[in-house]
Amino acid sequence: MSSQEQGKFIVVPEGSVTTPKGFRAGGLHCGLKKTERHDLGAIVCEVPAAAAGVYTLNAFQAAPLRVTQESIAQDGKLQAMIVNSGNANACTGQQGEDDARAMRAAAAKALGLEVHHVGVTSTGVIGELLPMHKVLGGIEELPQRVKTDGGDDFCQAILTTDLVQKMTCVRVSIGGHDIHIAGAAKGSGMIHPNMATMLGFITTDAKIESQHLQLLLNRVTDNTFNMITVDGDTSTNDMVVVMASGLAGSETLNPQHPDWEAFAAAFQYVGEYLAKAIARDGEGATKLIEVNVVGAESDNAARAIVKSIIGSSLVKSAVYGADANWGRIIAAVGYSGQSVNVNTVDIRLGDITVLEQSRPVKFDEEQALAYLKTDTIHIHVNLHMGSGKATGWGCDLTYDYVRINAAYRT
Amino acid sequence: MSSQEQGKFIVVPEGSVTTPKGFRAGGLHCGLKKTERHDLGAIVCEVPAAAAGVYTLNAFQAAPLRVTQESIAQDGKLQAMIVNSGNANACTGQQGEDDARAMRAAAAKALGLEVHHVGVTSTGVIGELLPMHKVLGGIEELPQRVKTDGGDDFCQAILTTDLVQKMTCVRVSIGGHDIHIAGAAKGSGMIHPNMATMLGFITTDAKIESQHLQLLLNRVTDNTFNMITVDGDTSTNDMVVVMASGLAGSETLNPQHPDWEAFAAAFQYVGEYLAKAIARDGEGATKLIEVNVVGAESDNAARAIVKSIIGSSLVKSAVYGADANWGRIIAAVGYSGQSVNVNTVDIRLGDITVLEQSRPVKFDEEQALAYLKTDTIHIHVNLHMGSGKATGWGCDLTYDYVRINAAYRT
Repeated sequence: MSSQEQGKFIVVPEGSVTTPKGFRAGGLHCGLKKTERHDLGAIVCEVPAAAAGVYTLNAFQAAPLRVTQESIAQDGKLQAMIVNSGNANACTGQQGEDDARAMRAAAAKALGLEVHHVGVTSTGVIGELLPMHKVLGGIEELPQRVKTDGGDDFCQAILTTDLVQKMTCVRVSIGGHDIHIAGAAKGSGMIHPNMATMLGFITTDAKIESQHLQLLLNRVTDNTFNMITVDGDTSTNDMVVVMASGLAGSETLNPQHPDWEAFAAAFQYVGEYLAKAIARDGEGATKLIEVNVVGAESDNAARAIVKSIIGSSLVKSAVYGADANWGRIIAAVGYSGQSVNVNTVDIRLGDITVLEQSRPVKFDEEQALAYLKTDTIHIHVNLHMGSGKATGWGCDLTYDYVRINAAYRT
Repeated sequence: MSSQEQGKFIVVPEGSVTTPKGFRAGGLHCGLKKTERHDLGAIVCEVPAAAAGVYTLNAFQAAPLRVTQESIAQDGKLQAMIVNSGNANACTGQQGEDDARAMRAAAAKALGLEVHHVGVTSTGVIGELLPMHKVLGGIEELPQRVKTDGGDDFCQAILTTDLVQKMTCVRVSIGGHDIHIAGAAKGSGMIHPNMATMLGFITTDAKIESQHLQLLLNRVTDNTFNMITVDGDTSTNDMVVVMASGLAGSETLNPQHPDWEAFAAAFQYVGEYLAKAIARDGEGATKLIEVNVVGAESDNAARAIVKSIIGSSLVKSAVYGADANWGRIIAAVGYSGQSVNVNTVDIRLGDITVLEQSRPVKFDEEQALAYLKTDTIHIHVNLHMGSGKATGWGCDLTYDYVRINAAYRT
């Protein structure tokens, strides 16, 4: 079920991370990227906002992630998130940690905030030290650049190999008050998130405590950011942070509030929108692939099978080539490590059944070709074993993925 | 340590699966491949040979694998292996199983053998029924085609997208008698073996019982075929079969025999040679990548880390582009799921140290570029945590991988 089917929230056209009350954002070029594109940005809130985050499980977690966790741990609040692109500040040792702290301190000073109310994120090349004079020079300019209409500028500042900005905003009624939830994210390579994806920023003007925000973020992340893959590589810098200003004037939300599920559904929509946008804009991608598995022994089994299919280089290449090669899909089901009844598997590509009860079904190759040439491909698998189900998203594997990654540093 | 360093065996130039005493082999075109290349082959032994096999752990194990296991189970012996390429006979239901049995029966009749002394293998497209009139017609011709110099013809018959034949033969002295071990294998996509790779055939004239052959095959497979990956996809048809004719005139080998380790080392060489040949000839590959991990908590941890690195699309793309992007290597170490001390990791590319005690080392980019343009790339990782070590092999990710797999069926 798409969360939007709940019908309790509406998408705000042209909404951005500054649509929720209390938020400003902005971006600028400080010199980390070779082109003149923005490479430094910030989201700033009028008040300390309830905050929650999820972080990569990669053992080599980058320095800024540790600094951000430390900030949130202090009193569960953030008033600003600073982000740079072009350099991940990962695997940079003590100097990298010192640099992340220096970024935080400089941003706090420039914006007039408590140091522990500032979070830091970085994305880009691993293993190079940040050119701090450029970063610190940029941070000094940030206060003038941070505006209520700066959502687009912020979005540009977080991109690396991404081709498109990824942003959405929804409105939902909480106890009669309209509140907003907005999000911005970046991809687009080293995307196989485990707990979080490579930079997601969610803002809301709902009133909610940090612990409940964390609860909801964990749940939504598991069903959205953690269910996408571009290349099977889990980054050192994955992070999703949410800030809630509480300025919408609505009651405090918690899991007992009658509108909690409406809020959760709206939140899920934002997470799912961003996750799908990251998958569709995966490096070199020409198509979004959505995999639905039903009838598995458990939801966890279904999730593993979804990830096995969506991560298969052979499935991804076949989708790129519009080849209805379902043998690769069933092979991926078979090596997922999950229990499978080899005689009861159905596979559909969109509405076209290609396998029923594990037997090949004669299908119209022309029709399949036409379907596989569209820009969103749905792969449906029914195992007929139980009620476990899951959905995940990925993209096709193309020449351009190889081109982009064969010479990323140079 | 390469097994060849034991110095107890020598490689036989131009040796093939028919070099061990008692074996003939051959191949022919029966019409499964669109081009005139061989697509049906056989290895035949003068006597029932002690046999052992390892098979894919993919849940959708193809029909011929089940039939071969059944044959070996009867009395631990095989006298012939029949193989077709161009069609995997996988996910073909009862009809596929009937077809595999019909192939076995027809080959037994044509060659004058017991039905249970014949094994069957298939490789190619998944989910299509074998055109049995072509296969059976080809099998009738097999007896004339199977010769003592038919190793090359056999090797051609097992190839699909492979570019080169993969065959080797060694000689080792057992109790004063020269015996041979030879192998032939095919790749080159859907290669991420779990228990075995996609078709390996090993012959030997050593005298050894099936149970000891199985023991050795399991051990060697774990260190060779199970340590390669081309694309992370575990096939439905992976199988390695070994046949021992016992015709060299040597004593019966078993783990207590003084020459057992010499035999095992020679066997390991054959497995490793074939595994590396499959990796180097991976679909679209231009380079062989060898990953050595030492200093891990255990050999199993080292194996998992090797597989994480060798399976990373980003590492593979960087090697293709000759980009010394070690950040991707350490990211893969970090998401391997194994325990890692984030402060003590060394990484070398060939002889070039790029990371020491987790700190970037200034290296000569020109020198690194020159090294990464060679055709065999060694990635060395030392975790400085324990004595666990492992080696594995893979290949770079290239435009051609995508081209080959975007339109495989068509």
